[in-house]
Amino acid sequence: MIYFEDIVVGSRRRFGRYPVTREEVIDFASKYDPQPFHLSDEAAAQTHFGRLSASGWHSCAMMMAMLVADMKEHQQAGLGSPGQEQLRWIKPVYPGDTLSVQVEVIDKRVSQSRPGMGLYRSRITVFNQHDEPVLETIGTGLIRTRAAEAPQR
Amino acid sequence: MIYFEDIVVGSRRRFGRYPVTREEVIDFASKYDPQPFHLSDEAAAQTHFGRLSASGWHSCAMMMAMLVADMKEHQQAGLGSPGQEQLRWIKPVYPGDTLSVQVEVIDKRVSQSRPGMGLYRSRITVFNQHDEPVLETIGTGLIRTRAAEAPQR
Repeated sequence: MIYFEDIVVGSRRRFGRYPVTREEVIDFASKYDPQPFHLSDEAAAQTHFGRLSASGWHSCAMMMAMLVADMKEHQQAGLGSPGQEQLRWIKPVYPGDTLSVQVEVIDKRVSQSRPGMGLYRSRITVFNQHDEPVLETIGTGLIRTRAAEAPQR
Repeated sequence: MIYFEDIVVGSRRRFGRYPVTREEVIDFASKYDPQPFHLSDEAAAQTHFGRLSASGWHSCAMMMAMLVADMKEHQQAGLGSPGQEQLRWIKPVYPGDTLSVQVEVIDKRVSQSRPGMGLYRSRITVFNQHDEPVLETIGTGLIRTRAAEAPQR
């Protein structure tokens, strides 16, 4: 299990592989972001998107899927997040793209208000198959401390 | 049609009604954020969430659904967004909650790099049925200018 104490400031890793399908782009947009350029190539051709592109919130969701798969693989004791400091949708994400993600830990500290928890900030970048960054955000993660997991006496 | 010229800085509106269902919370989390506290009450009870709560990205998606429904109702000539300046998940969102959204326009400007487009920044707050803010973000929206829509001569 990976705890707060194991998070290394300055560490940087790239991982994940998320193929973006047309069906999923349209399904997500139909439910949550039914703007024309997220639903059809024809409508998108009349905008700066050029062709059908994923909702920015769908890109965030796909990023999260890669992050959580990695957390599970490494058994990280995550406890959610209070938020993101910034979030930039740099380039459109298109059906046929394959996404990957890079996480760089910026800093960490023990929580003052929540005993047994620590916070760490990461710069998270999502890339497409051309190694172009499509999304960048600075996120804060909550994680259990190992100390908190020690048996109570 | 509402264009850049019609966006009023300082305006504030509250609208939308999004009932959060257990089925949708689990469905979204299963696809994009399968952390235990987004999948079961039992796992969530062992964390500060207390009980099954929606993925923060799901909350963003539900917010967007309300924003886009409103844009369509008012025929707003939206062109997507370059990003969010900050994003705070203030309180958990639970199945059974009913969400609404408030949008306050902070400022606006014509785009330097993209002719025919303007940008406006809004403080967007999502509330639950107890009028508690659960999510707050400052987003930038892109929108067509009316001038750009005038027939070319």
